[in-house]
Amino acid sequence: MKLVAYQYEGKAGYGVLSGDRIAAPGKDFLERYPDIRSVLDGGALPKLQEVVTSAPATLALADVELLPPLANPRKIFCVGLNYKSHVAETKRPDAEHPAIFVRFADSLIADGAPLRYPSGKSEKFDFEGELAVVIGKGGSDIAEADAMAHIAGYACFNDATVRDWQRHTHQWTPGKNFPGTGAFGPALVTADEIADITQSVLTTRLNGAVMQQAPLSDLIFTLPVIISYLSTFTPLSPGDVIATGTPGGVGDRREPPLYMKPGDTVEVEISGIGLLKNTVKAL
Amino acid sequence: MKLVAYQYEGKAGYGVLSGDRIAAPGKDFLERYPDIRSVLDGGALPKLQEVVTSAPATLALADVELLPPLANPRKIFCVGLNYKSHVAETKRPDAEHPAIFVRFADSLIADGAPLRYPSGKSEKFDFEGELAVVIGKGGSDIAEADAMAHIAGYACFNDATVRDWQRHTHQWTPGKNFPGTGAFGPALVTADEIADITQSVLTTRLNGAVMQQAPLSDLIFTLPVIISYLSTFTPLSPGDVIATGTPGGVGDRREPPLYMKPGDTVEVEISGIGLLKNTVKAL
Repeated sequence: MKLVAYQYEGKAGYGVLSGDRIAAPGKDFLERYPDIRSVLDGGALPKLQEVVTSAPATLALADVELLPPLANPRKIFCVGLNYKSHVAETKRPDAEHPAIFVRFADSLIADGAPLRYPSGKSEKFDFEGELAVVIGKGGSDIAEADAMAHIAGYACFNDATVRDWQRHTHQWTPGKNFPGTGAFGPALVTADEIADITQSVLTTRLNGAVMQQAPLSDLIFTLPVIISYLSTFTPLSPGDVIATGTPGGVGDRREPPLYMKPGDTVEVEISGIGLLKNTVKAL
Repeated sequence: MKLVAYQYEGKAGYGVLSGDRIAAPGKDFLERYPDIRSVLDGGALPKLQEVVTSAPATLALADVELLPPLANPRKIFCVGLNYKSHVAETKRPDAEHPAIFVRFADSLIADGAPLRYPSGKSEKFDFEGELAVVIGKGGSDIAEADAMAHIAGYACFNDATVRDWQRHTHQWTPGKNFPGTGAFGPALVTADEIADITQSVLTTRLNGAVMQQAPLSDLIFTLPVIISYLSTFTPLSPGDVIATGTPGGVGDRREPPLYMKPGDTVEVEISGIGLLKNTVKAL
């Protein structure tokens, strides 16, 4: 299933995307599971599939305003330096462990929403195309061998970064948490739809020109390694999001550097997962 | 007021501490403001003061199990390297900006609760006594001159750290988020009780021996600077917690290093704010 959350006629809802139409669950289901996180919390993905199979896809995708598939995850982890091509361009040494930093949920925006330019605060606003993993089954001390079964699904992510604020100190929190900088979507594609995520290819385009491109098989720390590592120091819960890192080609490491400006359009596309498109705006 | 949250007869509650007794607000108030965060959200501290002034302090502190004053803050910021004495012992250069990392709410524990030893994962479990600031009035781009008015109150904090996991990479998230490592309390002391927080002295004791001691006037980045800085890159909300950094004397920088072991007792005391006491346990 491709799950989308949206705003329609002033109300938040969610449903299953099929082509350019959305099948939404009925009132009874929504009362029990008011949003996608509660579906994951309740282990109710199979039930949702049943319900929407018989539901007509009545809503046109074009008529809704998308929201991030998870609007309020308990935890949003970001992995830094997880592609050899990106580690090389940052001139950092290889690491034994994934670098983990945190985004707050209020930095997330949906597909189509404005990517907010940090007007008056920085001109070093950079893109980072990534694969986001959403946890379906929580746990602590998850073994690598079991980790893939904890994944609910995947989405595209743009971990847009205010570079100078990222480098104010060695801790990256400030540059990674400006409002309106974490683009996430368009849909949460459930894991059963993807036979082998390492076969997918991630592409980031700025105004149509390819900036980053890498197969997911290039990840230094694989999804099982990341999930196992995270769950060793903090419990994972349904709906938690892991942005798994960005490949080489970020604007900041180009010569000359290429930063995003108001009016620019950024696309993060992952084969089999979807296309996340946002336009930079000074708000 | 000294606000405490607690568990009593199987139910969560909160009230105002006076001596060793607690005055809890009545049913009507609790329906509207079920926890301390909702009191802050509603700007209802003055109303709470009114309500408890006429309420009898019926509960004995000894009869309740304390909870962290805020159990589920939206954001928990930690400031690293914010005392000259600690920066010196880490041999790091001075920084122009505060180093900001994040704790998840599920790492918090109350005064008296077991400080959880990371059994089988690390033997480098260290104390960090700190002043915690709780936001009362939210906002973005808060000017330093206005920042103190955004503080609801203060508490003691032990930012207990799994040192080797903190240093797995340059990002400190893993070593700062093990469950049961963020001791916070015992009470939230409202800002009106503290004429000048920089006059308070922070002391950390391990099994009775003083390990860290510094006046709050030693903070490199003052509370107004921290609040203004944070609010520039992310919105602050009522109930957000800022652990403001630890002074010199952490166990890891001693010669030889001195780590906490199961059975050890750690106290973080701040004059005017209170005494936070936890015993390390392997759970």
